[in-house]
Amino acid sequence: MKFEVTILGSSSATPIFNRNPTAQALNINDRLFLVDCGEGTQQQMLRFDVKASRIDHIFISHLHGDHYLGLVGLISSMHLNGRIKPLTIYGPPPLKEIIEMQLKFSETTLQYPLLFKFTDPTKAELILDNQDVAVETIPLDHRIACTGFLFKEKKRLRKLLKDKLEALNVPVEFFSALKKGLNYVAPDGTVYKNDTLTTDSSEPKTYAYCSDTMYNEAYFKQISNVTLLYHEATFLNNMLDRANETHHTTALQAGEIALLTHAKRLLIGHFSARYKTLNELLDEARSVFPETELAIEGKTFMVGS
Amino acid sequence: MKFEVTILGSSSATPIFNRNPTAQALNINDRLFLVDCGEGTQQQMLRFDVKASRIDHIFISHLHGDHYLGLVGLISSMHLNGRIKPLTIYGPPPLKEIIEMQLKFSETTLQYPLLFKFTDPTKAELILDNQDVAVETIPLDHRIACTGFLFKEKKRLRKLLKDKLEALNVPVEFFSALKKGLNYVAPDGTVYKNDTLTTDSSEPKTYAYCSDTMYNEAYFKQISNVTLLYHEATFLNNMLDRANETHHTTALQAGEIALLTHAKRLLIGHFSARYKTLNELLDEARSVFPETELAIEGKTFMVGS
Repeated sequence: MKFEVTILGSSSATPIFNRNPTAQALNINDRLFLVDCGEGTQQQMLRFDVKASRIDHIFISHLHGDHYLGLVGLISSMHLNGRIKPLTIYGPPPLKEIIEMQLKFSETTLQYPLLFKFTDPTKAELILDNQDVAVETIPLDHRIACTGFLFKEKKRLRKLLKDKLEALNVPVEFFSALKKGLNYVAPDGTVYKNDTLTTDSSEPKTYAYCSDTMYNEAYFKQISNVTLLYHEATFLNNMLDRANETHHTTALQAGEIALLTHAKRLLIGHFSARYKTLNELLDEARSVFPETELAIEGKTFMVGS
Repeated sequence: MKFEVTILGSSSATPIFNRNPTAQALNINDRLFLVDCGEGTQQQMLRFDVKASRIDHIFISHLHGDHYLGLVGLISSMHLNGRIKPLTIYGPPPLKEIIEMQLKFSETTLQYPLLFKFTDPTKAELILDNQDVAVETIPLDHRIACTGFLFKEKKRLRKLLKDKLEALNVPVEFFSALKKGLNYVAPDGTVYKNDTLTTDSSEPKTYAYCSDTMYNEAYFKQISNVTLLYHEATFLNNMLDRANETHHTTALQAGEIALLTHAKRLLIGHFSARYKTLNELLDEARSVFPETELAIEGKTFMVGS
C-alpha cells in the first residue's frame, strides 16, 4: 500500500525565499491527507501536483498563522473549482469561527459540506478511523494549544501464495476468505491450514507528525517505534535557550527523540528563517540519529520501504 | 520623483501555477504602498525584493479572499521581524475584526501600532494625504462592497534655473522661497519675477487601481486622464455574460474604459485561471487601446516617464 509524504512547506514562523510555511500532503493508498496548511499551500500544491480534489481530510496542529493561514484560500478554491463532496477539518475549536467569519464577509456559501472535528490538546484521541488508516492526536508542548498527529496504517489482509493455490486448484471464490485467515477445505474434505497457503502481510507502517513542540517526554511513549518520525527542529542546539523560551526543539533534540523513541527514520523541518542553508541542522541531528533527512519543499518520502 | 508599480500577483479568484492572487507594491518617492494582499504576497515580496519594512500603508479593495488573505501573515511577519513603527490598513470595516480575531487566537500581541481606516464603498473619499501623495477611494461595482484607489502625486515645487541664479549671485537662502513661487528682490531693490528664475515642475502623475469591478460609467469621471490605469480584465469578451454575472470586466471593456477616460496607459490584470496564456487578453484590449500592458508578476511599470 502506498504510504508517503510530500513536503509543501518547511519554514517556521516567517517564510524565506524558497521555504514556505508548514504543510505536508500524505498519500495513503492514493487518498490524500493534508497536515497543516500555511500561507501559500495551494500554490505549493499546484507546483508539486498535489490534487486538492483528492483531499477529504485536513489536520491543523495549532493556530499560529504559519500552520493554517492557507486554509481559507484552499477551501474557497475547492468551492470555486466545483467541489461537492464533504471536507473534514480537524483542529482547535476556534478554527471554525475563523473560517466561517471569513466566508461570511466574502459572502461565500460553500457548495460542499465543510465538517469540523475539534482536537483537544490535553489528551491523545482517535479522530479518524477508516479502512486504510487510524489517526490519533498527539498532545504536544507549545506556547499555545497544539497537537501532532499519528497516522497508523491498517493491518492489511494476508498475502496469497499463488503457486500453492494453483497446485491445489483452489477456486478463486475462496481467495477472499483465505486473505482473511480462514482455512481452505478441499472438495475431498482435506483441510489446508491458512498459513500453508498465505503469508502474513507486512507490519503496518506509522507516521508521526510532531510540530510545533519543545522537547517533552510526555509524548515519547505514544510515538515509540514509528516507521517515520517528522519532528520540528527549528534551531541549532547552540540556541537551546531560545528553543525552550519559544517552545521549539533543536536539531540535536530531534535526533535524540528519534533515538529514544526507536524511530526507524527521522525527518526534520520547521527551520528558522535565520538558517539560509540547512546542512548544519542536518549534521547536528545525524550526529545522534544517522537516519535523518531534511523536509525539503517538493520532496516525497516513503513511510517505510 | 519615483512613481512606479511592481506587480506581485495577477490572478483572479483561484491561483494557477506562476500566477498569484492580487497584490501590487507602489513606490512613490521611495515610500512603499501595498495595494491588495492576496495569499502568498509576503513570499512574492521576498521573490521580488519588496521590503516589508518600507511599507507603512496597505490598501485593501474588498473582502474576497484573493485580495486580502495574505494580510495576517504579513502583519505577523512584520511583528516577528521587529517592526515598531505604525502600520495603517485601509479597507472595509470587517477587516479589523478578521485580523484581530486571528491575532487573538494565535496569542499574538503586536509590538507595533496597527491602525485601521475604514473605506466606504458608497462614495469617493480622500483617505490619505501627505507630502508625496493623496489617495482617494474609487467606488466600484462588484458583488460585494469594493473600492479602488486613486493615487495622485503631489504637485512638486518649482525648478530653479541654476544658470540664471548664478549670473545674479542669488544667495542660497532665497532658493526655498523661489521654489515656492515667490519673486526675488535683489539688494539694489530690483524685483525679479519668479518665472524668470524658475520653471514649473512637471505635471503630477496619477495611478488608478480599479479591481474588482464590472463596467460602470459611475467611476469613469473620477479616473479620467490618469497617467496609468490599472483595470481588471478577468475574461475575454466572448465571456461577457459571465463577466456581468460575476461583476467583472472583459479585456475589451478595459480597453474601452481606458479610451473613454483618456488614460495615458493601461495595465490589465486579475486574469481568470482558465487562461493559461495571456496573449489573447492583451490583443483584445489593444484592439481598442494600443497602449496596454499585461500586469505580470515581478514586472515594474513606471507611472509616467
